[in-house]
Amino acid sequence: MAQSATLRPAGLPDDVRAMLAEVAARRPRVHCITNTVAQNLTANVLLAIGAEPSMAMHPGEIVAMLAQADAALVNLGTFDEQRGVAAARLMEARDLLRGPVVIDPVMADRSPLRLEFAMRLATLPRAIIKGNRSEMAVLTPFLTKEITRVTTGPVDEIAGPSGKRSINAGHVMLARVTGTGCAAGAMIAAFAAVDADPVAAAAAALTCLGLAGEKAAATASGTGSFATHLLDALSGFSDRSVEEARSGEAR
Amino acid sequence: MAQSATLRPAGLPDDVRAMLAEVAARRPRVHCITNTVAQNLTANVLLAIGAEPSMAMHPGEIVAMLAQADAALVNLGTFDEQRGVAAARLMEARDLLRGPVVIDPVMADRSPLRLEFAMRLATLPRAIIKGNRSEMAVLTPFLTKEITRVTTGPVDEIAGPSGKRSINAGHVMLARVTGTGCAAGAMIAAFAAVDADPVAAAAAALTCLGLAGEKAAATASGTGSFATHLLDALSGFSDRSVEEARSGEAR
Amino acid sequence: MAQSATLRPAGLPDDVRAMLAEVAARRPRVHCITNTVAQNLTANVLLAIGAEPSMAMHPGEIVAMLAQADAALVNLGTFDEQRGVAAARLMEARDLLRGPVVIDPVMADRSPLRLEFAMRLATLPRAIIKGNRSEMAVLTPFLTKEITRVTTGPVDEIAGPSGKRSINAGHVMLARVTGTGCAAGAMIAAFAAVDADPVAAAAAALTCLGLAGEKAAATASGTGSFATHLLDALSGFSDRSVEEARSGEAR
Repeated sequence: MAQSATLRPAGLPDDVRAMLAEVAARRPRVHCITNTVAQNLTANVLLAIGAEPSMAMHPGEIVAMLAQADAALVNLGTFDEQRGVAAARLMEARDLLRGPVVIDPVMADRSPLRLEFAMRLATLPRAIIKGNRSEMAVLTPFLTKEITRVTTGPVDEIAGPSGKRSINAGHVMLARVTGTGCAAGAMIAAFAAVDADPVAAAAAALTCLGLAGEKAAATASGTGSFATHLLDALSGFSDRSVEEARSGEAR
Repeated sequence: MAQSATLRPAGLPDDVRAMLAEVAARRPRVHCITNTVAQNLTANVLLAIGAEPSMAMHPGEIVAMLAQADAALVNLGTFDEQRGVAAARLMEARDLLRGPVVIDPVMADRSPLRLEFAMRLATLPRAIIKGNRSEMAVLTPFLTKEITRVTTGPVDEIAGPSGKRSINAGHVMLARVTGTGCAAGAMIAAFAAVDADPVAAAAAALTCLGLAGEKAAATASGTGSFATHLLDALSGFSDRSVEEARSGEAR
Repeated sequence: MAQSATLRPAGLPDDVRAMLAEVAARRPRVHCITNTVAQNLTANVLLAIGAEPSMAMHPGEIVAMLAQADAALVNLGTFDEQRGVAAARLMEARDLLRGPVVIDPVMADRSPLRLEFAMRLATLPRAIIKGNRSEMAVLTPFLTKEITRVTTGPVDEIAGPSGKRSINAGHVMLARVTGTGCAAGAMIAAFAAVDADPVAAAAAALTCLGLAGEKAAATASGTGSFATHLLDALSGFSDRSVEEARSGEAR
């Protein structure tokens, strides 16, 4: 995501506000098979926008957890045997899934093990693949055009069945806090749980996180307070969108 | 825990202050078998109140770690095979335990695997079971009256051998930060390590966390700063209680 | 690390500034086999000073990850079977390592299992052992004089092939936030990746973290904001060192 020299106007785009209000109203449960480094921030980002995180991975309960979830995330960071088993169970339970699945192929460009898993996961129904340029470069040859593809970078590029979008929001500070990219995947899953168009959902999620990053950077004193302000910005965006939706209904 | 419209008076109840001073003086080590999402916040909450966290789970050392701890916590969030083995070792070492054991049956109402484990753990000496209403509803039929039962909710209800207590403290923001409920279990364990009455210990721990939540919410700008202020409030409560205990001794 | 009654002058020592500028310029990747409690803070500390964290542990990719890293850290906190396998692979790949390896023998004084692992890891080329007094006391009889030994305490003592150093920086608040000691090990690894003298690198890393702790404590309202300010101080030190290095080049 790009650094912007000037702050954007305070208002959030309409599509972001609408989806935030919808997430807060429906509280989608997003089941995350994600890395231990990013688990805490990912859960807090989902809670900040009104979604409900769950993170169980035991082979004896993962299928039940996934079947009841509104969306799923598989992030290949700190991939290990336990996560491998959990991802395999997700593959077997493909017909039980009732929502979209976001796949974040962390370092699939450097690890054949992860590339293999990412390719298999990409065959899941309603799959959305989100990676950086290097990761997407190795994966794209194997992806059909029905799959939503999100390539993050200075400008984020989204392509899928409903068309293409470019998102130019964000701040370099986002790269100096661990787990923000992983949390972006979880936000895409939460938005896609409440919107049938995965391209629109991914665009709104990345715009929302990027604008929160810009807002946080404007007042942060370093990387520690940036992380704190990022969550504050996200929960503030959510609260304001809910209030606006309510006052709109009341009119 | 309930949202309170008005802030309580600044002073902490006497029992909370006394237990905080005792925890800081004795520095109980609380051995936590807990989920990866909440480990960091749980450790920081224990450190904030002057207790000492430990979190080892290797089968080759868990018994030695538990036998030397002043209290234990078993939280069934992100329950996995490693945690299953650790919990089984805890069961085997029941006669070596020298302190109370808090059991947090996270989602035991949704997972037969977790319910089974929670029922077995509830047979440990000095067990304290802390869950939300749904979790406690499935477990209560299996619990004897000697077991301390903590049911969290808008008002927390505590029942055990020494009687019953209701706690009306807290703030809705506590539910928007991951791991606060898990950290509450660790606080109960730390307080129960220094007080022989588990009902009183649980009441003081939940009051302390609830008041810290109210204090944090009064100055937070969102969910990020709320988490930061929550730890600030807890460490401030602890520091102040230690100072008051010292000045009381000096008189 | 010691509590200092008075704040030091704002300026960082020259060696710290020089190494921070070098870390930011070369962005060393530090591969961390570390405990789940400290992973997040460790990654954020490395990012704050401009280094790049990686934390993979799967047996199918750990050797490739280590062989491409500029430094490694093995921290024995929450040691488990997965970490045991990863550490064993590190031993086998000893000839592929291209940088220093920092070993943090957490609780090796209390667990024979960890002592055994620490002794074996200490035979790695360019090993740096960092522990507290109790941990170093049990390990030192087995360490040759070529190994750099860092003993943390009120005053940190560093000894190695190039001589000895004592570091008197830090603040008691550092002990009230989980993972700061583990993050110190990662900072030593990052500094040792860009400086051939491990004694000088360890001295600069502990001075940098200690001064950041003093700066954070001066404005913190408790343990929560202390952790936030600590990262702010580290990223600020890094940013300032980079700017100074650039303006020096420009002159």
